[in-house]
Amino acid sequence: MKLGIPRERHEGERRVAATPETVKQLAGLGLDVLIEARAGAAAGYADHDYADAGARIVQDLDPGELNVLVHVRPVLPSTAAALKRGAVTVGMASPSSELATVQALVEAGVTAFALELVPRISRAQSMDALSSQALVAGYRCVLEAAIRLPRFFPLYMTAAGTVPPARVLVLGAGVAGLQAIGTAKRLGARVSANDIRPASADEVASMGGTFIKLDLETAEASGGYARELSADRGALQRELLAPHVAMADVLITTAAVPGRRAPLLVSRQMVQGMRPGSVVVDLAAESGGNVEGAVPGEDILVPTADGQGHVTLVGLKDAPSAMAQDASRLYAKNVANLLALMVRDGTVAPDFDDDVIAGACLTHDGAVRHLPTAEALAAL
Amino acid sequence: MKLGIPRERHEGERRVAATPETVKQLAGLGLDVLIEARAGAAAGYADHDYADAGARIVQDLDPGELNVLVHVRPVLPSTAAALKRGAVTVGMASPSSELATVQALVEAGVTAFALELVPRISRAQSMDALSSQALVAGYRCVLEAAIRLPRFFPLYMTAAGTVPPARVLVLGAGVAGLQAIGTAKRLGARVSANDIRPASADEVASMGGTFIKLDLETAEASGGYARELSADRGALQRELLAPHVAMADVLITTAAVPGRRAPLLVSRQMVQGMRPGSVVVDLAAESGGNVEGAVPGEDILVPTADGQGHVTLVGLKDAPSAMAQDASRLYAKNVANLLALMVRDGTVAPDFDDDVIAGACLTHDGAVRHLPTAEALAAL
Repeated sequence: MKLGIPRERHEGERRVAATPETVKQLAGLGLDVLIEARAGAAAGYADHDYADAGARIVQDLDPGELNVLVHVRPVLPSTAAALKRGAVTVGMASPSSELATVQALVEAGVTAFALELVPRISRAQSMDALSSQALVAGYRCVLEAAIRLPRFFPLYMTAAGTVPPARVLVLGAGVAGLQAIGTAKRLGARVSANDIRPASADEVASMGGTFIKLDLETAEASGGYARELSADRGALQRELLAPHVAMADVLITTAAVPGRRAPLLVSRQMVQGMRPGSVVVDLAAESGGNVEGAVPGEDILVPTADGQGHVTLVGLKDAPSAMAQDASRLYAKNVANLLALMVRDGTVAPDFDDDVIAGACLTHDGAVRHLPTAEALAAL
Repeated sequence: MKLGIPRERHEGERRVAATPETVKQLAGLGLDVLIEARAGAAAGYADHDYADAGARIVQDLDPGELNVLVHVRPVLPSTAAALKRGAVTVGMASPSSELATVQALVEAGVTAFALELVPRISRAQSMDALSSQALVAGYRCVLEAAIRLPRFFPLYMTAAGTVPPARVLVLGAGVAGLQAIGTAKRLGARVSANDIRPASADEVASMGGTFIKLDLETAEASGGYARELSADRGALQRELLAPHVAMADVLITTAAVPGRRAPLLVSRQMVQGMRPGSVVVDLAAESGGNVEGAVPGEDILVPTADGQGHVTLVGLKDAPSAMAQDASRLYAKNVANLLALMVRDGTVAPDFDDDVIAGACLTHDGAVRHLPTAEALAAL
């Protein structure tokens, strides 16, 4: 069976859905692996390394010839339409926002697996691309903050006096937030963090952060994700966070609710209350933003209330893509591990009795298998 | 006596020669402190904080009124000419490259102290601006590398496999190099380093780096600085370094010889032998460059020998200025500490029997007191 790895077409996307290492794994499963020339170039993976690993380099993939297509960004509707009936796709599908693609996959009779839908159970951890890419994003956002801060992160004791460490506040302590805490701590900052899930207090502490307890009722949703707070409680949350934000040199926000708009945690007024030179990095900028006024891919200078300077508000965009080599390394393993679960004797044969396979399946045999997506499509 | 703190006029310079903290120290010495409005703004120090510390905010300083002028970048010849006979200046003077300023200082009868000339003895460590700013630059260049590298610095053990740490090679183990080693190590990289001074091996190890011993005769000059290698030995050095450079994900070069062109440690061919995606940061780019082809303030993409990608060659420029708040904090202390040594009862009265004062003095009473600068001026 033929498996194809495309060059990603999405602007600014530098990742690739397979590395030479995973090509070896996929070829070892008995699959015939085709890869588009220079598909891994932007991520630092060379064509000759893919060839050495057992892939055939082709100028352009013909989707109609493939049994399996692996990808990073959701496939285009036109690509979905060109796939064979029964072909399998594995990759990020953003089902809530890419309904046109979902429709095309259904109509083409494609069996599409969305990595976002992989159940968050321990057996499926090695296929969890949301987590692997959040790890990258969490590390990245600390670098983005540190390079813009006119101060050191670590404490320095020098002959010319002592420089106190930077204060970093992280809001949202999921995979990305915890990684941000750990990375800021590594660099020597004094780190505190908050999350509406009480269970995260121990995790924050284990990464070296100080958990800030807010006097809110706490909420933890099924699946380990935070659920949205009601409007009133959101306002209370912001009020309680304001003094902590004002004290921070760096604020990093990572609160996301999958498939929904990110919660507004920080108002413009709160940003204006920070000291001149402070930096805010909003990792949720692409999904609506945790910080008022954040624009994905842009640095906004917010004047401080004292009129003496500004805060740099960074709307992060494509964070994992900026670390394309290691982000692809982890992503490609997620893809290959999910595929390995459904290949027998060189044939891709998904067993829908397997919870992981069933859970990750977005479309199959002309139907949408993910209920919220099916409802969203029906509502169009 | 009136002491003036100007807004720095040099393009791209964000530092300031005094902070509210050192204004308090200077005012405490009995000096009448004047500061230009918004002089500290780019570094994150507000006018009202200077005022609270005891400074008077003025729109523009009149050099002719001042007894003391403190500064970051060398004063302009026109400013030097406008100073009173017997006025004192304290700051970086770059005497080897700013001869026009030196000439103007001599003609105006100014007593100029150059922080670069402060003797490297323990009593003067708190006035050593070369060291304090090199500390900032060394930290900074690691961030500049990390943000461009498409990989993590630390080792990660994840559900999707293990990501090995980045390999960082630091050439030149002075203050900046040691700080780069320590910062890269903090971030989790595997760090190795080389310096032509054998004494640096222990210092490299103390920062967590592995010292690379090259089979060169070793050289250590007076004053703790490296001296230039002869041309032949430079070629041998590059040859011996080449395999270490090829293995590195990140190369940071920090080898400087004060007042002279930086040594060429890395040829273009060596850069081309690195893997696609690798990053080179040349901290010496402004003084001629340790790396062939480095351009101050620019990223150059050097194609790799395998034709599969490129290496990003960063010519660092104004590195301490990019961290203006903490760089100013340390620099301002250096300035204030040197001044404190020469103020008695509110009067600046340098005692030239003091080695530190005598050593740091560039011009006094119509003469150049620093021999190499006097020779360079005479040779014009």
